[in-house]
Parts: sequence; structure tokens; C-alpha cells
Amino acid sequence: MTASASALRPLRGLRLDLCARSARDEHLSGEVARAFLGGRGLGAYLALRERLYEVEPLAAENLLIFAPGPLTGTGAPASGRYSVTSRSPLTGTVFDGNSGGNWGNAFRRIGWDYLVVSGALRDPGYVSVDADGVEWHDAAGVWGLDVPASLARLRELHPRCEAAVIGPAGERGVLFASIVNNRGRSIGRGGLGAVMGAKKLKAVVVAGHGARRPAVADPQRLEFIVYEAEKLLKANPITSQALPEFGTSVLVNVLNQAGAFPTRNFRESQFEQAGQISGEMLKRDHVQKRAACRGCVIGCARRTTAGGQSGEGPEYESIWALGGDCGVGDLTAIVQASYACNRAGMDTITMGSTIACAMELTEEGLLPGGPRFGDAAAVVALAEATAVGEGLGVELGQGSARFAAAHGRPELSMSVKRMEMPAYDPRGMKAQGLAFATSNRGGCHLRANMLNPEILGVPKMVDRFATLGKSGLLINMQNLNAVLDSLSVCKFTSFAMKEDYYARLLSAVWGETIEPQELLLLGERIWNAERLFNLAAGFTRADDTLPARLLHEPVPSGPSAGHVVDLPPMLDEYYISRGWDGEGRPSPAKVERLGLGELAAEIEAAS
Amino acid sequence: MTASASALRPLRGLRLDLCARSARDEHLSGEVARAFLGGRGLGAYLALRERLYEVEPLAAENLLIFAPGPLTGTGAPASGRYSVTSRSPLTGTVFDGNSGGNWGNAFRRIGWDYLVVSGALRDPGYVSVDADGVEWHDAAGVWGLDVPASLARLRELHPRCEAAVIGPAGERGVLFASIVNNRGRSIGRGGLGAVMGAKKLKAVVVAGHGARRPAVADPQRLEFIVYEAEKLLKANPITSQALPEFGTSVLVNVLNQAGAFPTRNFRESQFEQAGQISGEMLKRDHVQKRAACRGCVIGCARRTTAGGQSGEGPEYESIWALGGDCGVGDLTAIVQASYACNRAGMDTITMGSTIACAMELTEEGLLPGGPRFGDAAAVVALAEATAVGEGLGVELGQGSARFAAAHGRPELSMSVKRMEMPAYDPRGMKAQGLAFATSNRGGCHLRANMLNPEILGVPKMVDRFATLGKSGLLINMQNLNAVLDSLSVCKFTSFAMKEDYYARLLSAVWGETIEPQELLLLGERIWNAERLFNLAAGFTRADDTLPARLLHEPVPSGPSAGHVVDLPPMLDEYYISRGWDGEGRPSPAKVERLGLGELAAEIEAAS
Repeated sequence: MTASASALRPLRGLRLDLCARSARDEHLSGEVARAFLGGRGLGAYLALRERLYEVEPLAAENLLIFAPGPLTGTGAPASGRYSVTSRSPLTGTVFDGNSGGNWGNAFRRIGWDYLVVSGALRDPGYVSVDADGVEWHDAAGVWGLDVPASLARLRELHPRCEAAVIGPAGERGVLFASIVNNRGRSIGRGGLGAVMGAKKLKAVVVAGHGARRPAVADPQRLEFIVYEAEKLLKANPITSQALPEFGTSVLVNVLNQAGAFPTRNFRESQFEQAGQISGEMLKRDHVQKRAACRGCVIGCARRTTAGGQSGEGPEYESIWALGGDCGVGDLTAIVQASYACNRAGMDTITMGSTIACAMELTEEGLLPGGPRFGDAAAVVALAEATAVGEGLGVELGQGSARFAAAHGRPELSMSVKRMEMPAYDPRGMKAQGLAFATSNRGGCHLRANMLNPEILGVPKMVDRFATLGKSGLLINMQNLNAVLDSLSVCKFTSFAMKEDYYARLLSAVWGETIEPQELLLLGERIWNAERLFNLAAGFTRADDTLPARLLHEPVPSGPSAGHVVDLPPMLDEYYISRGWDGEGRPSPAKVERLGLGELAAEIEAAS
Repeated sequence: MTASASALRPLRGLRLDLCARSARDEHLSGEVARAFLGGRGLGAYLALRERLYEVEPLAAENLLIFAPGPLTGTGAPASGRYSVTSRSPLTGTVFDGNSGGNWGNAFRRIGWDYLVVSGALRDPGYVSVDADGVEWHDAAGVWGLDVPASLARLRELHPRCEAAVIGPAGERGVLFASIVNNRGRSIGRGGLGAVMGAKKLKAVVVAGHGARRPAVADPQRLEFIVYEAEKLLKANPITSQALPEFGTSVLVNVLNQAGAFPTRNFRESQFEQAGQISGEMLKRDHVQKRAACRGCVIGCARRTTAGGQSGEGPEYESIWALGGDCGVGDLTAIVQASYACNRAGMDTITMGSTIACAMELTEEGLLPGGPRFGDAAAVVALAEATAVGEGLGVELGQGSARFAAAHGRPELSMSVKRMEMPAYDPRGMKAQGLAFATSNRGGCHLRANMLNPEILGVPKMVDRFATLGKSGLLINMQNLNAVLDSLSVCKFTSFAMKEDYYARLLSAVWGETIEPQELLLLGERIWNAERLFNLAAGFTRADDTLPARLLHEPVPSGPSAGHVVDLPPMLDEYYISRGWDGEGRPSPAKVERLGLGELAAEIEAAS
């Protein structure tokens, strides 16, 4: 791997072999840290180098790579995050999720930079790590517990621990099972919880609070930049008002008014009952108090109650998936269904979208006795059935792509690369369609969310109905998000902080000057590394697409009426702007410029 | 012309026929106002409709179209502007410039929305207009005076008037002569002053202060939005600090440090004496006080002194053109040379770049006895000689493209479409090269300045050395600037104000709801109308290029060392993103979507 010479210290890794129940230390050079940072970038690097594109996602050969980033635990704003990277059983792509809370901080404080989990246990177990080493534990008494109970039990067994666990969904192989820490913080979407379940690994416990503060080269400088950055976060209307006050659910009314709120499995793009399930209603009827990841000045989370239950969330995406997308306008039921997903440790977006798919199949006469749009009780019941693997829940646990295909109508799955799209109808915001189609982990708003320019006008308003001219902005956001996921800091900071702040924070931590421009190149490197993985795994241009409904069925009414997504020219433009060929393959020149030549050669040699 | 139905009142125009010394009223429909706004957009519409692409720029058949915009004079921030549109004698393209000061406000207050000047006078004269009509005047006693003296004399003849005048450069046909109002405010760059001179029209005088305040549909709403917008302008660091404190000259050090400060006719991209000619030095040694266009809360202008003379400016571009680009590090001489240009009414960028071209020709042995790089006195003397048409000044007055060609080395003109590029070396900021190449009025930073994203990170940092992925951002900026030039408001407001503010201001003035997205479409319409003009005038893809030096001669040293501009793929990407074919022609679908079908059909019929 070609990268600029760097005096950065090597990264200290811990590799667990579950088959042998053994652990060993390992290292990656400072050049790798300089080229891939940590978190998601490090995960992509290791996934490529260890050729995970050749393994079955649920086989013992697959790896789970836990990695905080260079800013984790340093006091940088909203930086207490970590990533888990693997090959996804839902999508088959390289896949990372990242999560806030305290696990990332705690892991860094025991002195490691990353953790690789290989192999599989013979019987359910879990592992605890601290500054002194690794302990193997039988999971009897924890296996089978839901997420809150698992976390509580592990806290009893390991006082002051931080644990990343799976719930019943992960144990049972639900393909969209999450890995959860601090109750509400999840590595969601792509089913890495199922990978952990297949390894019979209930939890990775960071035992006690380590004493090793992450090394910071220039603490005084860091403190000053953090002070300045927090001023920005407290001054910006989105990070100081919209998110703390309403959380993400403020978007229900915004997207619905724009005619971009997918309704009843994307058959429509406006929901007549949106007002009943809005962020304003959530705040009025369900929110108890605000909450925040440790040290975060934004604080977008909220503790809620519904029908005698209590929990965290739901976020905008969950309200949409379990609500509008199923034609459900009963907010209490939506909140309860989201609690059920959280308890089981499974993804709300895929759960809701898969139920919506089942509802459409029912209405099309293909699922006799199945749920119907608008049936709030069915949504709650099906989420619970999926968690425990009962009845229709067994099939729903495979996600909508497999479910719809099994019932003869694959096109009714609203997914990209078999991952369900989130709460934005691309027919009302065309570049969001390009974002979904080109996301390297399937239908996803966290690789890049064109909501910002197309609806909010951040950083720049663009014509949401225009087909062309937006790929550069999308690519810029994809690259920057890859950096944020690797640093690791929360993406919400980027409403207020620009590239220069991340560069200054990292410079202070590393004691090497990192230019803002270098960060962008770094993000491009990570994105292209992930692309190389997916190409090696057999993905082609044909997979960079959207459900046929979005390409051919015009929105029936509302502000986006008559629109479809004209994807091919967008994809052409995007590939050109990426420096890829017409089939979406990075050109040799691009691979070389990004210092990915060696990794690409290894793929070549392996094929 | 296809446009949405609109209840807007028709635009009231005044058409002068200089041959007949006659005037008549005319009207354009509210639909035209809705589709092209005013200012530059209206100019482009009229230039197309009146087929100026068929006329010789200096012939009597060419028109000068004076037009403020719908926001001019309404109290909207920094909105006291007007445009003049014509076919440029320097470039042969459609060409508009716009200018602040008070002329635009005064013109609107006498009740017209635009003024078309056709034909030519037999003898030098000028025209005065007021609310009651038009008066024709002999120019004896004014013709031959420099700009300040002309303005002073006209104020004596017409108390409280606002005048747009030409100086000796315009009278004499210098191809980069300006039209000037309020001493320092110019319609610069493309030589519309020479068009006015060819018409023997010394001035357009708005006599006295008209009483007709521009109609505002909802004055209370406007007042509130202006209040909010001014808060934004006063809070933004660029509009509240950088520009008022240092003016644009703050950029000397910024660009030089980036290795994007073209030096000695673009042979290098860093100037070893930049520190001596910086904004900081200008402030220390020359600035007397700040100044502002009427009612502007930014106030970027400044009154200066140098060597016993006093005047306004120089702006960043002027310091660069008459300084670094000529290898000159003597700030007093630079300021004096800029005063000479202002007095003569001619463009500082083209003047400086043409002198730099002469200097390189001299060093190449092609201009015996010519000026040499670093000769400060020569710069001042040549600016004065060009103004009065003496010696080498006669030739320099044709601009560098014609001058370099006449001396056998056309490639030494640092121009695009025969207009000299401003103070940014595209080899150090690649998309600026694309901006220059695709600007529809030649080498220009006012159609879109990629300084913002590539150096300042506004609205988004991009990799300045990347070739691809930036055309969408460029197009967005080109479209938005077309809107601002048509409203007309100062572009500097857009550092603090987003599209939604302009839309709200316009909505309050018109009493019709204008969505931010509609403004972008409007900008795209104007840009494509201008493109249609240039295609009709014979421009092709081959004209969307840069001087060979930027394409083939790597920067010799500094942060941009080794870089050239790889233009063809950028142009391919740009055309695709524009919805144009590979030759840069808007597709029929694009033309229709923008409502330009009728205008395009007229071109077709005329050819």
C-alpha cells in the first residue's frame, strides 16, 4: 500500500480466535493509520486484506472488526463512537455500522485500537477484555435474554463494564439483527448481529474502566479547538435547536410536505395521517426527557413512554418505517413496535419496510391472511413475532428482498442490494435515488443523505427534481462521511463543523499537520477501497439500481406527482465524476492515485 | 416563450433610437419578468430576441440594455444594482456587467424597468431621462473629460443626477473600456464602454430623484425579511468581518500561500513579493476609510491614497493584475496604476494582464524596447498611455489576445474567449479552470468563483487538485449567480444568505410565492439562454478552453508544483451535468424544460 511516510505509532490490535478460544496481539503500521484512520476505514482495509469478499457472511471464516477511531475518547465533540465491519449477510457487501454511547471510549481506554473476531464458538459464550487481557465466558444465563436484560445481567457480572451485545434476533439469525450497546445505541441495518449470532458470541464486554487515555500529541491545542468547535455546535440552528428540541423526528412533516415521505411501501409519497405521527406529536405525547451520548453537546436522543412501556426513540426513520410506510397513523403503536425492535436487537427500517412489503403482497392477493396497510396492531405483533421467530416472523426475519422473492414478486421489495431504503422517496428528490443506488452497503441514508442539499439547502440548495448535476455534491458527502465514520465522530457535527475543524482536531491528536484537503482524499480512498471489495464480491453496475417502482411508476399525487427517477444518466455522470469506467470500476489511474494499487493487485491475484 | 402564467405587471421599457434621437415606451409581459426577472436575465432575453448575435459589436445595430432588477431600490440588502447587456467587442459573446452605487436605484425611481439604447449618434452627445421623458444633449464640454471630471460636470449640469458615463478609454474604443457610475462603480471587463463610445454616447443621466418607489406587494413582510437577512449578514464572518475589514484584497496572501496566485503572466503561481502588496499592507499604508454602496451593511469598498493621489480601491483582482501578474511588488505604483484605469474608465484586470503579456513578449525578444517584468513605473506609464492612446498603449487597448496574436505568439495571451483571466491559477484549483473555460463571457470569476469551495471551503470544501466531481457545484453557482445578477443583488450577500432568503425577498416584492427551487431553475434558464446566444454567434466546444500554458506547462514550484489542468474530461462531465450534448449544445429536452423553445426556434429560423 502506497501512502505518505508517517511517524504515527503503529495501531495495536487484538485478534480473537473463537474456535481456539485464544487471543493474540497484532499491529498495523502507522502508514495504515495515516491512510485509513480507524473505524470504518480500518475495517474496509482489513476486510479487503483478509479477503472477506470470498467468505460466506454467516460462516466462521467471516470476521467482525470492532474499531474506534483516532478521535474516539479524546474529548473531540461527539466522538465516542466505534465501528463494526464485516461482510453483511443481508447484502453480501462490505458492511460497517457505527454506534455512539460509551463502548468505543471504554475500549480505547484499555489500550487497543481495534479488535478482530474470527472463527466461531462451539457453544454460546461471550468474551470480556480489559487492559490485562481476555477472558472467555459461557453465555448460559445471558443467551436468550433480550437486549436490556442482557446488558443488565452483564453489568451484574462485570461491574462498570461496557458491553456490545446481540439480542434474540441476532441469536436467531434475523438478517437485520443489530449489535447494541448502552441499550439504545446500535450497529444496525446490515445484520452484523446475525454474524455475531452465527459465531455464538453473545457479547464483547469491556470490563471495568481502563486507565489508558488515548494519546494526544498536543492536548492544549486540542482543548482549544474543542472549545471553538463546541461554540459552533451551540450556535448552529440545527445542532443547537432542531436536533436537541425535536430529534430527527422533526423530519416527518418536512418530508411529507415535500411529497417525499414514502407511504404504503412507496406506492405514494405523501401520508394523509403524517400530522398524527410527527415529531411535534411525539414530543407532546411521548417524550419524557432528552438524552445524549456521553459528552455530546448536541443531545439528539430522547427517552419516551408509550402505553405503559418506556424506552428510547423512535428516530425519524423508525417512525416512518413502522408508521407511514405501513400506512399506520397510530403513534403509540409505532413507538411500541420500535421498542420491540430495540429489545430484540433488530433494525427498525428493515423491519418496517419488510412488514410494508408483506402488506402489499397481502393486498395483491399473494399472502392470504397477511397484514393489511393501516393495521397498527399487526405491525407491533409482527415485530414481536420476528424477534422470537414465530409464524410469519420467521420469513420476515430474512428481510423484504428474500421475502418478496419467495412470494413471487421480488419487485415489491423496496430495497437496494437487498437492504431496505430509508424514509425518502427518490422520486421527489432525485439525487437521493442516486445516493441509494451507489451506496456501497445498499439502500442507506448514512453513506450520504441528499436530504441536506435537496430539501434543507445545506450546504447548498439544489433543484430536487433535477436529474443531473448533483453527483459531485453526493460524492463529496460520501467521501466526507467515510472520514467521519473513520475518525469516528457523529455525522450530525457536520451541520456546524466544516472539514477544517476535523483536520485541526486530528492534527492536534496526531501531532502531524493534516490539511482539510487530505481528509477528502482519505475519504475517497476509503470509498474506493469499499468499491473494490464489492466488485471482488461480484457486484456490478447492474446492482447500482433502484426498485423498478421508483424508475417506472410515477408518484400518483402531491408535490412530486408524475415524477420517476431517470437513473442511467445519473449513474453515468456519477461514474465519470468518480473517475470510474462505464461499469463502475475505478480506473487504474484512480486506484494508483489513492494508493490502493497493492490491495487491488491482491484482488487480481486472488481471482 | 413558455412560462408559467403570472399575474405580474408588464415591465415598462424605454427605447432610445440614437440615430433618430427619439424615444418610445415599450412593454414586456409579466411572463417575461417571471421567466427572466430583470437585470442580466432580461438582458439575455432581449439580446436573443433582438438577435444581437448577428451584429458587429461596435456597429450602430448593437444594443445597450440597461436594466435594474425586481429587488433594485426595494430596500433588499445590497440590491442597488443594475446591469448593462450587449454583444461584447472584446469577446464577441453576449455580455453583461453589473454595477452598484446609486444609478440603478435612481433609474427605478423614475418609473422604468429597463432602457434599450439602439443606433448611434452622429456627434458626441448624452441623454438625460427623468420621470417625464428624455432629453438629448450635445456632449461638448464633457466629451474628452476623464471619469471623475465627467461625473462632476454632469452633476453641475443636472443637480442631484446619477450618471453612467464613459471615460477617455470608451470614447477611444479601448476594447476593455467600462461604463462607470459613482466614480468607483463600473460595468467592467468586456468593453461595453467601447460600445457606448462607438455610439458616441457619453452618458446616460438619470436627472433628479424620481418619486416612484418601486412597487412592493407586501412591504411589511419585506421589511421583516430584510431585518432578518441583515442579521445574517452582520453575523457571518465573511460579510461582517473579512470584507468590511480588509475588502477583497485580503485574498492576496490567501491565494499566494495556496500557490494559486498567478505570477508573471502565469509563468509561476507564487509571487515572492506578495507580502508587500497584500491587503494587510494596503490597509496599513493606503486605506483612508471604508465605503459602501448606498444602504449596504457589508461595505467592502475603501477610499485610499497613494503618492499624493486619492481614489477608490484597488480590489484584489486589480492588485494582482497590475502587481503580481506583472512581477511588480510596489504597492504605491499598483494603486496609482489602478487610479489611472479608473480615471480612464477601463478594466484593471485586462489592462494588467495585457501589460504582463507585453512583458513576456519583451523577454521573449518579440517586443524590442518593451516593458519588463517587475518594472513598476512601466505599468503606471502604460496604463496612462492606453487611456490616452499613445505609443504602445494603442495596441494594448485591444487586449492581450489581439496584441499577442499581432506579435506572433497568440498563446501568450492569458485569456479565454479573448477576455483575460482573473487572479486565480487554475493549475492550483482545477475547477476554477473549468469555471473560466465554461464562463459564457470569457475568463471571469463573476459567473462563478470556485475560490469559495476550492480554497475557502464555502459552502463545502472540495479537493482543489481533483479533476472531476466539481462540475455540479460549479453549475449550481453559475445558476445562482445568474439569479443574483438578475434580481439584482450583490453576490457577496450569498456568503451569508441562502436561496431561501432571495426567494422570500422576491415573493414579498412580487406578492407571488417563489420557491427557492424555482430560483435555481430560473438561473439555469438564463444560463442556457446565454449559451444559445453564444452558439448562434458561432462559439463551439473548441472555445470552451484555456490558454495552452495551463493545459501543458506544469507549475514550476510551490504547493501547486507539477500541476496542469486536464480539461477535456472536466468539460465532458460539465456538459453531461448541464444536460448538453458532447459539443456543448443544450439538448432539445433541456431547451423545452427551461421554456426556451421559442427563442431557440427563432435562432433556428434565422440561421
